[in-house]
Amino acid sequence: MNLDENWVIEVCEEGGSAFALRGSQKVFEQQSAYQKIEVFETDTYGKLMLIDGYTMLSSRDNFIYHEMLSHPVLYSHPAPRRVAIIGGGDCGTLHEVLKHRTVERVTQIDIDEVVTQAARLHFPELCASNTDPRAELLFADGIRWMEQAPPGSLDIVIVDSTDPIGPGEVLFTPAFYSACYRALDEGGLVVQQSESPLIHLPIVERIHRSLHGASFHTTQTLFFPQPVYPTGWWSATIGTKGIGLNGFREADVAASDIETRYYNAEVHRAAFAQPEFFRQASETWV
Amino acid sequence: MNLDENWVIEVCEEGGSAFALRGSQKVFEQQSAYQKIEVFETDTYGKLMLIDGYTMLSSRDNFIYHEMLSHPVLYSHPAPRRVAIIGGGDCGTLHEVLKHRTVERVTQIDIDEVVTQAARLHFPELCASNTDPRAELLFADGIRWMEQAPPGSLDIVIVDSTDPIGPGEVLFTPAFYSACYRALDEGGLVVQQSESPLIHLPIVERIHRSLHGASFHTTQTLFFPQPVYPTGWWSATIGTKGIGLNGFREADVAASDIETRYYNAEVHRAAFAQPEFFRQASETWV
Repeated sequence: MNLDENWVIEVCEEGGSAFALRGSQKVFEQQSAYQKIEVFETDTYGKLMLIDGYTMLSSRDNFIYHEMLSHPVLYSHPAPRRVAIIGGGDCGTLHEVLKHRTVERVTQIDIDEVVTQAARLHFPELCASNTDPRAELLFADGIRWMEQAPPGSLDIVIVDSTDPIGPGEVLFTPAFYSACYRALDEGGLVVQQSESPLIHLPIVERIHRSLHGASFHTTQTLFFPQPVYPTGWWSATIGTKGIGLNGFREADVAASDIETRYYNAEVHRAAFAQPEFFRQASETWV
Repeated sequence: MNLDENWVIEVCEEGGSAFALRGSQKVFEQQSAYQKIEVFETDTYGKLMLIDGYTMLSSRDNFIYHEMLSHPVLYSHPAPRRVAIIGGGDCGTLHEVLKHRTVERVTQIDIDEVVTQAARLHFPELCASNTDPRAELLFADGIRWMEQAPPGSLDIVIVDSTDPIGPGEVLFTPAFYSACYRALDEGGLVVQQSESPLIHLPIVERIHRSLHGASFHTTQTLFFPQPVYPTGWWSATIGTKGIGLNGFREADVAASDIETRYYNAEVHRAAFAQPEFFRQASETWV
C-alpha cells in the first residue's frame, strides 16, 4: 500500500527509513529568517511540529524527551540554581526545568522566535511557565551568548538543539563546548541531545570526543524512547566540569512533588545502562 | 513529499502511524495455510520479514528483541534446563536460548513452517543453531502442545508470538496461560512479548490480568527499543510460578562467555524500570 495525502511523512535519509502520522491538516506554516516551521494536527499524536521537514515534537510523546533532557542533569547537580537552555524554542524543556525549586534563573536562548510563537499557539501546555519570573527568553545566537556569559556563572547548560545539520550544526562543535565549559561553575553539567544510538553512533562518538576536547571531565550517555524520532530510540550525552557524574540526589526525587510522566528515580538510574554494542564501541572513544 | 514504490510501508492502524524502509525488492513471498509471508531486501536494515503486512523482524535490529525475550528470563531462573518457545518461527529466540549451557532441551512450536523456511533462506544467522541436538522444532498448534505437556515439565516458556490479532490471538488468553502454568515446574517463568508501552497499554494490562488469573504469582514488564515496530518501543511481560522475580543470576552474566549485542547485566536491571505513567497505571491492575 502507499500513504495518501492524509499523512505527514518524515524521511530519515541517513537511516533509510520514514515515519508518518495520519492526519495532515496544516495549522501553522511560516518561513522564518532561519528555517521553515510547520505544525500539523494529527489523528493520534495531537499536534506535530516540523522544522525544514524534520520532526521536532508531538503533543503525545514530547514528555519523554523534555523530562529526560532536564531532570537527569538537574537531579545530578547538588544545587542547580543557574540554568541556560540553548535552543529549546518550543519551551518544553524550560517548563520541566522550572519545576525545580532550587532553580533561581533559567535563560533560554533560541535563535528563532517563530518556533516559540508556534509553540505558544499550538503547544500552550509547554509554554505555561514562560511568564515565571525566573524565566528569561532570549531570541539570539546561542553560541555568542555562551561566549559572552561570565565565567562560572552557570550550573547547568542544556543543549536542546535540532540535528547537527542546518542552524544547529555549530552546537555540536568543540568551540561551542569550550564556551559552555568556561561559562559553567565547578561541578557544572552540560547535556546535549545526541541522536539515535542505533543509526547515529558516529555523532554520539563525536560529541563524547568534543566534550573531552573541551576539558569536560566525565562524559556519559543516557537512553530513552522517542517514538516520533527516527528509530524511536534517542539519547542525550552529559559532560561534567571537574567531577564525575555520581551525585544523583535520589532522596530528593522521592521527596519531591514534581509531577512527571516518564521520569522517576528508577528510570534515572536505568537510563544510563549502556547497551552492549554501545559499551563496546565507547571503550575506544576516550 | 510522498513515498514511491521503492519503500516497504507498514501502517499501524490503531497507532495512526506508519513506518517505512527504503528498498523494496521482494525476495520471498508465500501464502501459507495460515498467513502471507514476505521478505524484502532493504537498503539499510538488511532483510525485512512481514506477515500479513505486519513487520516481524529486520536483520539490523532483531538482536534487541530476541536477546530481551530470552536472556532476562533465563538469567532469572536458578537453573533453566527445559525451555519451550511458542511461535518464534524465525528461530532468533531459539538461537539466543541455546547459548545457555544449562539448557538441555528447547522445543519450539510454531504453527507455520513457512516462516521457518523463509528464515532459513533469508535470516540464516538466526537459524545457525537449528541443528543443535538440544533443539526440537515442531510445526504444530502451540496451545494444544502446551495443554498436552506433562505437568511440571518446563522451566521456561517464551511466547514469541505475533500481535493479538490473527493466529496469535489465542496466545494472549487466560486459557493458554493456565496451560503454561500447569506445564511449568515450581519456580518456572513465562515471558510474553507485550507490544508497545505507549500505544498498547490496554494489551499490557490484559496480559497482567490474564497471567494473574492463571495463578501466576508475580508479573513484571520489561522495556526495550525495537525500531522496526510501531513507536520503536516495545515490552515483554513475565509471570512467575510460585515465587517472586528476584533470582537474577548477575554473577553468572559476568562469568559467561555468551556474546550479546544489547543485553548485559546493567541492561537487565535497567529494563525493569517502569516509566512513571506505566507505574501509575499498573498500580490498578492487581
